[in-house]
Amino acid sequence: MTQVLALSGGIGGAKLAEGLQRVLFPGELTVAVNTGDDFEHLGLAISPDLDTMIYTLAGMQNPELGWGRANESWNFMAEIERLGGEHWFRLGDKDLAVHIERTRRLDAGEKLSAITADFARHFGILGKVVPMTNDLVRTMVITDEGTLDFQHYFVGRRCEPVVKGLAYAGAADAELVPFIDEAVQDPSLQAIVICPSNPWLSIGPFLEMPAWRQLLVEATVPVIAVSPLVNGQAVKGPTTKIMSELQLEQSSATIARFYEGIIDGLVLDRSEAHLAPQVSMATHVTATLMKTAADKQRVAREVMDFARSFSKL
Amino acid sequence: MTQVLALSGGIGGAKLAEGLQRVLFPGELTVAVNTGDDFEHLGLAISPDLDTMIYTLAGMQNPELGWGRANESWNFMAEIERLGGEHWFRLGDKDLAVHIERTRRLDAGEKLSAITADFARHFGILGKVVPMTNDLVRTMVITDEGTLDFQHYFVGRRCEPVVKGLAYAGAADAELVPFIDEAVQDPSLQAIVICPSNPWLSIGPFLEMPAWRQLLVEATVPVIAVSPLVNGQAVKGPTTKIMSELQLEQSSATIARFYEGIIDGLVLDRSEAHLAPQVSMATHVTATLMKTAADKQRVAREVMDFARSFSKL
Repeated sequence: MTQVLALSGGIGGAKLAEGLQRVLFPGELTVAVNTGDDFEHLGLAISPDLDTMIYTLAGMQNPELGWGRANESWNFMAEIERLGGEHWFRLGDKDLAVHIERTRRLDAGEKLSAITADFARHFGILGKVVPMTNDLVRTMVITDEGTLDFQHYFVGRRCEPVVKGLAYAGAADAELVPFIDEAVQDPSLQAIVICPSNPWLSIGPFLEMPAWRQLLVEATVPVIAVSPLVNGQAVKGPTTKIMSELQLEQSSATIARFYEGIIDGLVLDRSEAHLAPQVSMATHVTATLMKTAADKQRVAREVMDFARSFSKL
Repeated sequence: MTQVLALSGGIGGAKLAEGLQRVLFPGELTVAVNTGDDFEHLGLAISPDLDTMIYTLAGMQNPELGWGRANESWNFMAEIERLGGEHWFRLGDKDLAVHIERTRRLDAGEKLSAITADFARHFGILGKVVPMTNDLVRTMVITDEGTLDFQHYFVGRRCEPVVKGLAYAGAADAELVPFIDEAVQDPSLQAIVICPSNPWLSIGPFLEMPAWRQLLVEATVPVIAVSPLVNGQAVKGPTTKIMSELQLEQSSATIARFYEGIIDGLVLDRSEAHLAPQVSMATHVTATLMKTAADKQRVAREVMDFARSFSKL
């Protein structure tokens, strides 16, 4: 009984997903999560955005870091460092369990979508958390220092190299997972929501997949995006740095152009209300900064009301 | 400059190895460790005896458990259980680092002996810790409930099934690692010591390897074994339970027969001094129970003195 299909990256998007989970009945939310940032590290299959989403929807995310688990310990990491192993990408002791179980099950031939659904169930999540694809898609960041895989750019180099462009290796041939087809064909579906994630890094990988683009363009329910910008700045992460490096105006007008032809409505922060007239689609203006559970719930409710205001159905 | 080459399993043997490390000059001890108990678990290459040896020689072993790390945390394990993963074999958060790094490096084509030497170095050990072989040898326990691999018998079933026999899969074709040849050819070598490990479970895998048997039989230095029995009982583990199930008398006389043709001298506990006349090789009687560092040092020193008493050189 999916009422909302949300597309999301990690931290920022997960906040809205948490809000949607709060305002919908149990099980009515399906979240499709970016896997373009996935990588293999220390021999383990790491899916940062999937894990952030599961931890957030389970209420077990690390509130200080944004990623990883609450009340985490770091004994494993200290020992990897002692052994001379790679320690630039930090894995907490609790967090390790999902990487080891995921790797073991992938090696045994299970699909990432099935493993993720099982993890979500064990974490007590009643909705669905679904990788955007089970196929290998890798976001590559083309920089002034050469092409870097995402985590080496994002974590390893702290987004310092200047971005010249992005490539999504494997996206052209990647397929949807069945859970997504089910969600889209569900007669209960009311809206598709693009969460306030980084369009280039987190939503770009979806849009480079022909199957996702077609799904969004042909959707019979409203498609609503929430701009990740507040007063021309990203709440967290390198969105505006990348916009600047790509010679793009740092405002939600650029976000609107990015999603043109895909979305029916854009939710803008109050600080960017003046941009509404420049935007080609319907807009809804509100305070989009989500710090508390109440913020997340309110924004989610407004997104749902905004979606219902379309006569597309 | 190897003075002593020791053969050992896990906990019991590691105590004497620690004593030998204390009485020798830094770097004079080479310990060859049983790998017949190694197995793959959660997709990781686990080498229980090698790790116990490294942790013990580094002074970082868990004093309560005997295996694993001191001041260990168990957050990973709790999460594996939450995810529905296998949790009968417990892996601590610190301990995990060696398993993950070892697995990664083995998958990258490195030899177990090279990885182990590197780990020992990172743990500050000046002697050498060497797997008995880099080849796959697996101790299989033939029981009244069928044949079990070692860890499923030992940890999974807590040694409950009745042992009918033992098999060491792969031992016939397994080869020595070069570090062992180096140690044996070292003109400084004074003794080969078989630590007070379980003969059937921990030393049996060595003796089933033709290369090890030949090395011991042809050794030009005295080969000394320390009986693991005190008053007809093992200090820890299933040694006497297995002896009884194999219809063997539970005494050091049986240990002596097991090592006949291999060793030149047997160290017996005082409680078994009366067995010395039944034993075909030279004996040295002392208190073999090693609880304190002083005990370990004293037994090690007596083993060295006993070895020097042979005119074989």
